[in-house]
Amino acid sequence: MRSTLIVGSVAFDTLHLGGVCHSKVLGGAATYASLAAAHFTQVQLVGVVGQDFPASATELLRTRGIDLAGLEVAKGDTFHWEGRYSDDLSSRETLRTDLNVFADFRPKIPKSFRSAPFVMLGNIDPGLQIEVLDQIDKPAFVLADTMNLWIDIRHAELTKLCSRVNMLVLNDEEARQFTDKSNLVQAAHALRKLGPELVIIKKGEHGALLFEGDDVFALPGLPLSHVVDPTGAGDTFAGALIGWLARSPDLSSSNLRRAVLHGSVLASFCVEGVSVERLAATTTAEISARVEQFRRLTSF
Amino acid sequence: MRSTLIVGSVAFDTLHLGGVCHSKVLGGAATYASLAAAHFTQVQLVGVVGQDFPASATELLRTRGIDLAGLEVAKGDTFHWEGRYSDDLSSRETLRTDLNVFADFRPKIPKSFRSAPFVMLGNIDPGLQIEVLDQIDKPAFVLADTMNLWIDIRHAELTKLCSRVNMLVLNDEEARQFTDKSNLVQAAHALRKLGPELVIIKKGEHGALLFEGDDVFALPGLPLSHVVDPTGAGDTFAGALIGWLARSPDLSSSNLRRAVLHGSVLASFCVEGVSVERLAATTTAEISARVEQFRRLTSF
Repeated sequence: MRSTLIVGSVAFDTLHLGGVCHSKVLGGAATYASLAAAHFTQVQLVGVVGQDFPASATELLRTRGIDLAGLEVAKGDTFHWEGRYSDDLSSRETLRTDLNVFADFRPKIPKSFRSAPFVMLGNIDPGLQIEVLDQIDKPAFVLADTMNLWIDIRHAELTKLCSRVNMLVLNDEEARQFTDKSNLVQAAHALRKLGPELVIIKKGEHGALLFEGDDVFALPGLPLSHVVDPTGAGDTFAGALIGWLARSPDLSSSNLRRAVLHGSVLASFCVEGVSVERLAATTTAEISARVEQFRRLTSF
Repeated sequence: MRSTLIVGSVAFDTLHLGGVCHSKVLGGAATYASLAAAHFTQVQLVGVVGQDFPASATELLRTRGIDLAGLEVAKGDTFHWEGRYSDDLSSRETLRTDLNVFADFRPKIPKSFRSAPFVMLGNIDPGLQIEVLDQIDKPAFVLADTMNLWIDIRHAELTKLCSRVNMLVLNDEEARQFTDKSNLVQAAHALRKLGPELVIIKKGEHGALLFEGDDVFALPGLPLSHVVDPTGAGDTFAGALIGWLARSPDLSSSNLRRAVLHGSVLASFCVEGVSVERLAATTTAEISARVEQFRRLTSF
């Protein structure tokens, strides 16, 4: 099995959802992405946690075969984010961010991870994402995720990063913000000019768009009657996507489309439970069944 | 060819788009819907215009084979709407509404139209939509469109109308408003309980959802690099959809999906020009090519 290096945050989230507070549940981009990717590939996780990080959480990751040699345990507390979602889950506000050990995070890639052919640079400071690339052998495929904060305050580094990645993943609002183009087709083409030959624009419940040359693939979101917690859905999407590519290392258009499909399938499970609870419980049979659901959803 | 009765507004629109003002161009739900439906069915239009309505506009409709026996010419001026779109076309504000002859519009269905098997009740007061149904023979299929205004001020009439239609078409915001459910799957099921066995939720650039029993079909919007004027896209969608059903009167799941596809295809042309200019110029060959584009867009 080809291995996939996943770098990003491992965190505690305190989530206010529909009037209920879920205190310090497992979160973080690398956590979600790794759990999703582990269905398809050998995951090598790089991140940092504090001394308060529970053995049960590392155990959960380890049982999925995730290699934690790159999970540094630093003095202090684990990164903690607290947020409140609107009743319809369409927006959220940050109530508190305790960077803790994440404040001084400088990813150190273990020797055994440096030749991973597939690399996912989760959403962290683009300067650190570049540092990761500087430490590793030339990988076959690099996916980078980002967010509005870095587009705002690290525009130059993010632009530099773009020239070194194969696929950039971001949401519609971020694509517009990064390129100053309101039209998503134009935004995607502007992003591709910065380097990545592949651009994915995530649209939450509306699905995702994959731009490859002049070709576009659009996959709608699966209409779900009960969405519980959208946290980590984007990270789950990206993790499953790169995991799928690592398992079937074929970058043909049709396989890229299947990768987007598997990203969407895992993300659809992710949002059905609080924190990683539903994602972590997802079985291979459930994934296959939902792939069929997507086929039925979209066929004409 | 099976005929389709289309009832709705015929209007002048003054559109402020990207700093340019397009004064008193042809508009109205029945206009857009009829031009789209005429590709597939014999259209019988019912509406009202004023004495200022130009011969060139009636001529345009007539050349598409649209039967104008139900287009009343009343004393006064044609309904006129003026609006300004935001630069990214994602929102619009109404600057002025001159109801003019539309204020007293009571649809009168000509005898020759009363047996039309397919009926589209464009977005007008649901009380008038019911009056139309009271004047006609039992049609095979009735589609009703509506808007936030009627959900607000004609909730009871709209609910009553729902029990008499086969398909309700509305946008996501309206579906949520009508049912007080933020989840679209739940909203669609609540709407189906009011009567229509088919519910379509339009999501603008994000495409459309068709709910049929427990089955859902999701068609993404075609990502377009140049969108010029979104006016009438929803009416165009509904018109082409019912036109397709009238041409191939088969209400199987797969044909309903193809109807949604053709609705989306015509809507994608509609937004590429100001007023009806691009829609009116659309050829059968272009429609076929864009169907193929949708296939490529969505296949995996």
